[in-house]
Amino acid sequence: MSDLAGRFRELWDGIAPVGRDADSGGYLRYALTAPELRLREWFRAQADHRGMPVSEDGNGNLFAWWGDPPTGTQANDAHATGTRDSSTQDRDGPTRGGAVLTGSHFDSVPHGGAYDGPLGIVSAFLAVDELRAAGATPVRPVVVAAFVEEEGARFGVPCLGSRLLTGEIDVDRAAGLRDAAGVSFAEALGHRPAGADPALLGRFAAFVELHVEQGRALVDADAPVAVASAIWPHGRWRFELRGEGNHAGTTRMADRRDPMLTFAFTVLAANKEARLRGAHATVGRVAVEPNATNAIPSKVTGWLDARAAEPETLHDLVEAVQAKAAERARRDGTALTVTPESTTQLVAFDGGLAGRLAALLAAPVLPTGAGHDAGVLAAHLPTAMLFVRNPTGVSHSPAESATDDDCTAGVVALARVLEELACH
Amino acid sequence: MSDLAGRFRELWDGIAPVGRDADSGGYLRYALTAPELRLREWFRAQADHRGMPVSEDGNGNLFAWWGDPPTGTQANDAHATGTRDSSTQDRDGPTRGGAVLTGSHFDSVPHGGAYDGPLGIVSAFLAVDELRAAGATPVRPVVVAAFVEEEGARFGVPCLGSRLLTGEIDVDRAAGLRDAAGVSFAEALGHRPAGADPALLGRFAAFVELHVEQGRALVDADAPVAVASAIWPHGRWRFELRGEGNHAGTTRMADRRDPMLTFAFTVLAANKEARLRGAHATVGRVAVEPNATNAIPSKVTGWLDARAAEPETLHDLVEAVQAKAAERARRDGTALTVTPESTTQLVAFDGGLAGRLAALLAAPVLPTGAGHDAGVLAAHLPTAMLFVRNPTGVSHSPAESATDDDCTAGVVALARVLEELACH
Repeated sequence: MSDLAGRFRELWDGIAPVGRDADSGGYLRYALTAPELRLREWFRAQADHRGMPVSEDGNGNLFAWWGDPPTGTQANDAHATGTRDSSTQDRDGPTRGGAVLTGSHFDSVPHGGAYDGPLGIVSAFLAVDELRAAGATPVRPVVVAAFVEEEGARFGVPCLGSRLLTGEIDVDRAAGLRDAAGVSFAEALGHRPAGADPALLGRFAAFVELHVEQGRALVDADAPVAVASAIWPHGRWRFELRGEGNHAGTTRMADRRDPMLTFAFTVLAANKEARLRGAHATVGRVAVEPNATNAIPSKVTGWLDARAAEPETLHDLVEAVQAKAAERARRDGTALTVTPESTTQLVAFDGGLAGRLAALLAAPVLPTGAGHDAGVLAAHLPTAMLFVRNPTGVSHSPAESATDDDCTAGVVALARVLEELACH
Repeated sequence: MSDLAGRFRELWDGIAPVGRDADSGGYLRYALTAPELRLREWFRAQADHRGMPVSEDGNGNLFAWWGDPPTGTQANDAHATGTRDSSTQDRDGPTRGGAVLTGSHFDSVPHGGAYDGPLGIVSAFLAVDELRAAGATPVRPVVVAAFVEEEGARFGVPCLGSRLLTGEIDVDRAAGLRDAAGVSFAEALGHRPAGADPALLGRFAAFVELHVEQGRALVDADAPVAVASAIWPHGRWRFELRGEGNHAGTTRMADRRDPMLTFAFTVLAANKEARLRGAHATVGRVAVEPNATNAIPSKVTGWLDARAAEPETLHDLVEAVQAKAAERARRDGTALTVTPESTTQLVAFDGGLAGRLAALLAAPVLPTGAGHDAGVLAAHLPTAMLFVRNPTGVSHSPAESATDDDCTAGVVALARVLEELACH
């Protein structure tokens, strides 16, 4: 095992137990709950250990600075001046030019995997260590970030922290978002979120987020690391189907208006239409009324998650599914209502930056269907993503995985990227 | 309005608000929950008012006796000896011969109708009143029953009370059935159910259950009341489909093992196979894990309710649906497990009794696709059912209905039947 692989494993083992469900093996690290708060304390300790003062943006996002922190930022405990590694650079560090931002998020989906989010933060700290060990001399600050509520698993809006920082969500709306127990985001945060911070954003010259891959393209490509080209446009549409509740035993088939039939047809149509277009369509959530074995449902609601490489393809896909559902609804005697719940435009990452990093790393360039904080920040500053190979291709599940070797390759790649962006 | 219609409306209004959901207008009267417990108290009060001692069978079923209650049965409050109607007969009543049992159940499906069950109990008390007002002199006891958990909406097994009384379900299995919150039937009952009671069953010479019709045959026949000929064989089968939970955005369609697809195909196959055979098949209940918009499900469970006029047709239908589901599961890379949860054989009601009652009432004779406690008891004693016209044909829904005139006709018919069976 290389020295770096050993240090990766040591840091990784330090957070592995936090928020892990013993039964599923998955993680319950919802934003601002006890497990995620423990990871935030871990973040501060790691930053202190490296002499990196930590600032907050008033929205729940944390930033550890190697060089030129915002006015008023102080190291937050005795580690900063006492026990930090003697090999670290001077606390003030590089001060010229816009800072290079890296990092990711700690929060998980319900019973999610270990890597989605935390890998980008752990890798960022280790990349800083690599640069320092190599004697690199940054001319721009390097900043490690932990964004809050990236998954939207607690308050319902994904990338909430980065949306607040960039002003892409109304502060009052964000403050009032409530979790399943009725706790608002403002209550969980301890104060009203601060919202957009153009001054802070203006400090950053670039953002690079490292993330575990959420598919098997890198397995096919036989490469440990890739650079992202784009995030597919995507959205959620709610299909409400109303029929006539009735007795399952006594109602003749010809007399039925059964919305479960329309729902089932829509599920299969969505799958078929997505395959025809090389797009993705999923119906993973359904609600049935009354949901009784011996009752024809009165109402079935299905949620369509659809994504495609181009906005036109996504539009055509959703139109086609909707048309097929409507046609079947006429046959079934049911009534269809389709409501878009959220839509996200195509995010094309900075082409020049992606090309430069791909050449630097000799890495493939891939699009992704998943949203990330990098997708939000990409509208505001040059942004790139690195993906680390996931042998199962599975994510948002305990089966999500990455080998220590590939994670180490990710750290090396991120260090090279930071050296490229911050040291010249 | 006739005097009887007025008394029907008065009794009916007394229970109409209990367990009614303000939004749907339907009923949430699950067995042994607060609304059903209130109806059981109402049952005791009505029995007391008529001087009918109430016995329990240790399984949750209640019996109000006009004449010769089981040893140890006592009227359960002061009404019995204090304030009861002076027109009632002596509390001990008729004692010769086997008793004539009538009644039905209080519990509902989720958001069910008002009539399914309670109409048979209300009509039974009013029929007792009619007999007494007419000066009838029963030579056999007349007993009004309220059976527990007829719908199976809380603990999953329909006719649970009558199955326990007749020994048609294992006591340990029944005791351990759990509701959605994890409460067992034994816990809800307050004790382990007593199971089969041959001595009590042996007291009954016949059972007649009055029930709202769950179809439109009486509308077509232009008659307010019918006599049942048979209950179609029917059952419930649980289809568990396991796939691989994964990210909806990043997992290529070709890499998926999505059990929602297999479920959807099964729903459509069940519908088609039932239509081909003139049978009934319904998937009205589904459970999805994790049931999140952006997650391919790891597991989808659907419940198939299937019914047919002949046992062979039902068997072929379920085999065909299972074969189609299994074939699709292979294509989807999912794993299918099918578990029969309950099956009910063809019930042919006592032909002699049905013919006698149909002649007495000049009523049509009809089969039904719905299970009833009468179907369970029919294997143990001569049993008949009366159906009351339902203008919508809808049941297990707030739209279920019956006119006061037809309900009154039902009471008159039941009183004539009780007079025929108990007074000669």
